[in-house]
Amino acid sequence: MSDIRIDGFLDGRLRIAQPAHGYRAGADAVMLAAACPAIAGQAVLELGCGAGTASLCLGLRVPGLDLTGLERQLLYADLARQNATVNRIALTVLTGDLARPPADLRARVFDHVIMNPPYFLGGTPAPDPGRAGARREETPLSLWIDAGLRRLRQGGWLVVIQRADRLEGVMAGLSGRAGGITILPVAGRAGHPAGRVLVAARKGARSPLRLLAPLITHAAASHARDAEDLTALARAVLRNGAPIDMGIAKVP
Amino acid sequence: MSDIRIDGFLDGRLRIAQPAHGYRAGADAVMLAAACPAIAGQAVLELGCGAGTASLCLGLRVPGLDLTGLERQLLYADLARQNATVNRIALTVLTGDLARPPADLRARVFDHVIMNPPYFLGGTPAPDPGRAGARREETPLSLWIDAGLRRLRQGGWLVVIQRADRLEGVMAGLSGRAGGITILPVAGRAGHPAGRVLVAARKGARSPLRLLAPLITHAAASHARDAEDLTALARAVLRNGAPIDMGIAKVP
Repeated sequence: MSDIRIDGFLDGRLRIAQPAHGYRAGADAVMLAAACPAIAGQAVLELGCGAGTASLCLGLRVPGLDLTGLERQLLYADLARQNATVNRIALTVLTGDLARPPADLRARVFDHVIMNPPYFLGGTPAPDPGRAGARREETPLSLWIDAGLRRLRQGGWLVVIQRADRLEGVMAGLSGRAGGITILPVAGRAGHPAGRVLVAARKGARSPLRLLAPLITHAAASHARDAEDLTALARAVLRNGAPIDMGIAKVP
Repeated sequence: MSDIRIDGFLDGRLRIAQPAHGYRAGADAVMLAAACPAIAGQAVLELGCGAGTASLCLGLRVPGLDLTGLERQLLYADLARQNATVNRIALTVLTGDLARPPADLRARVFDHVIMNPPYFLGGTPAPDPGRAGARREETPLSLWIDAGLRRLRQGGWLVVIQRADRLEGVMAGLSGRAGGITILPVAGRAGHPAGRVLVAARKGARSPLRLLAPLITHAAASHARDAEDLTALARAVLRNGAPIDMGIAKVP
């Protein structure tokens, strides 16, 4: 059994129990939640929800959502359920593989699907089983996108956060199957290449792709003290739970 | 016969005769040339060279290149030859369709291929034949990319400028066939979505995609007088013929 640690998110308003080692949610999960344009009354699915950080951040910002998480690893699924209870946010956590989703999930469609697929491809298995499951890409990126699109209603939004250098794989998964593709580069510093991309796409839409101005997370020209160094926008999102405006219409 | 007008580029150092109406090269052709990492002694092909603006900008910045342009429309091909002569830059202009390139072109490979494919899809034919040929997408974007990759040597760079909303098509054309994909968003104002993208990719490479910080062309928060309003970088590129650094290694 891994060591479990409690981490505070959104200035401590959300308390997330997660393994001290192995895959751990961080700023990316918070940004993913911030970019989801869900409104009260809508149903949101998170694929690979881990300990539930993104879904719970979203639930904290938008009350009245119907939140479901799918997680393959039992340890993380249990933590997500426990984190939902502790934070008093309703989150249904299903245990299962997104490539073969449970029947009760296959029977549903959602208004929004969010996902933060693992960032590292195959290679040497990490010694920690949590890390091995979440960080190694046992499920190809295209399968994640495909599984997300299948669970979306027509007109529903998929939002993905991913390493910027894997934008090609995200685009390939979406191509011809979703429109309104909106790419938000996330860069650590102004003038630097993006480290992450937030990509939103709308099932069945035909509206044109948009490549937005980057979200810059750190203000100083070089690395200073991390906490003090956030830009005003990054601080609003990561500390205060503000939404990220991707120019996506909130469609009931 | 269309009216022909002489336009100055690069602060008047390049004089380009082109039709007063219909397709006319502008800042995009200059940026395309600025982003090509060619060095003296290398061979560069421009697909759809129009009146030769991009190739001649490149020839002005980098002496000693072996420049070839392919153009389907006789009027533009003739203008490109004339513009090369007037500006004293060696440019071989072939007349032909990139989907069925002339045999002497098919026999060659190049170190670099540059292109500025037409920006508008089908729709109502424009009354002007020049406009009709260059602006309507009679040749799909994927065919342009394919034709470019075919004419590149292994390790050679393809550079494309395109409307940002057509990034999906550019990526689809490159996917799995070129690596080192480098995307430079070009935005009119800081904080605004990109209007254009410059995309470079290296044939046969496997290096990761990079999404660069945007090139901002205009400094003022809203539209003022166009000429005075350029950012320092845009002025350097558009007026002084400076290269655009896409972080691409110049490989002999």
